[in-house]
Amino acid sequence: MEKRKIEVCFTPQNIQYYDFKNAHVVVVDILRATSAICSAFANGAKAVIPIPSVEGAREAKAKGLVVAAERDGKKLDFADFGNSPFNFTPERVGGKEVAYSTTNGTQAITLAKGGLSVIVASFVNISAVADWIVSRGEGDVLVLCAGWKGKFCLEDSLFAGALAEKLLTSSIFFTKCDSTQAAMQLWALANVNITIYLEKVAQRHRLKKLGLDDALEYCFTPDTSKIVPILINNKLVPYKK
Amino acid sequence: MEKRKIEVCFTPQNIQYYDFKNAHVVVVDILRATSAICSAFANGAKAVIPIPSVEGAREAKAKGLVVAAERDGKKLDFADFGNSPFNFTPERVGGKEVAYSTTNGTQAITLAKGGLSVIVASFVNISAVADWIVSRGEGDVLVLCAGWKGKFCLEDSLFAGALAEKLLTSSIFFTKCDSTQAAMQLWALANVNITIYLEKVAQRHRLKKLGLDDALEYCFTPDTSKIVPILINNKLVPYKK
Repeated sequence: MEKRKIEVCFTPQNIQYYDFKNAHVVVVDILRATSAICSAFANGAKAVIPIPSVEGAREAKAKGLVVAAERDGKKLDFADFGNSPFNFTPERVGGKEVAYSTTNGTQAITLAKGGLSVIVASFVNISAVADWIVSRGEGDVLVLCAGWKGKFCLEDSLFAGALAEKLLTSSIFFTKCDSTQAAMQLWALANVNITIYLEKVAQRHRLKKLGLDDALEYCFTPDTSKIVPILINNKLVPYKK
Repeated sequence: MEKRKIEVCFTPQNIQYYDFKNAHVVVVDILRATSAICSAFANGAKAVIPIPSVEGAREAKAKGLVVAAERDGKKLDFADFGNSPFNFTPERVGGKEVAYSTTNGTQAITLAKGGLSVIVASFVNISAVADWIVSRGEGDVLVLCAGWKGKFCLEDSLFAGALAEKLLTSSIFFTKCDSTQAAMQLWALANVNITIYLEKVAQRHRLKKLGLDDALEYCFTPDTSKIVPILINNKLVPYKK
């Protein structure tokens, strides 16, 4: 059996330089879009509809959908709530389709189309994601970090490193990719004491300034959910083994 | 006095997301374009003219200029030589203007225009570059890594980390940039034993496969030159204190 390649792309704006038609694309926006999506499914959401633009989110609201939407961390005025994972309560999202638009994460999901599949990952569901990838039996892996407005961000890269490390313990995967190497090295450093490490992370300070850093611990606690959100017909739907 | 900001951009394709009009842009392509440019000046070149396209390099040759040019590590057939730093001997480049075109590095130099200045850096001249930046007295710093065809590469990032570390020992600089943090952490890991670390670097293996890894030690030996190449009127010219 051919070995399966792992690559990491640090910003959605660079995905065009990767050949990912034979890869499962794993979209990551730890603070906070993909952590929040995992939280929505853990709380019973039926589907999450990623919406790249503010206008699209406004239209979804007009159509009567539950809308979660933020820009630069702040809830948009017309939205039902912003993107703290704690907003996606069973009361608000249970059994419902939720329209979701964020600064970086939902654009990344849109740009990820074109591979074998698009799935959403965070520390919340990291082991379920690794198991799902292994269970596919074939297909390379491209971890797509949402980053911050076209720039590299640490928290998504740490996740990419953690996931790559998990997958590379199995001999069916390999990497020759410098960004994967870098992500794994950064994760090894961070994992010694994640709370101290997070003091270096720019987004942690952006959120703190806005009083929006309540969900930090949640976003870095692994495996509180076993659900893998998968993009099917432009909607994320829950997969559970 | 206002503190001076340090940022790192991991690929030229992302430079548009940085506001660098008040920054000195430091272009880095360790394996091998900017190491080779430093070598050219160490050996007496009068100027190096960065040429992004193959067609442009061909025209320069037709005009009678000395032309160094490669794509994917291999010398272009019409060029006088490729981009090993050892090609730029005093006999070939002393007192001359050299036209130079490479896979990633020369495009990065072109994209770097628009800041306070564009300079070329490598381990070969790292301390001279740091001194030059400090001596400007003002201006932020954007380290622009050439990367590899739109992707992150380790060797340029290590340099970015090494330079940022040098500058941040002075309290006149600061960083709030995740890529600068990551670069410094990677450099700290690599600097323990650079030869062993380089085994992880994809470009090291690309060059080895082509039999072009002769200059690896040269490219990672710091401070063999005190010359800072500066872009003036689309030509790199040597600055020496």
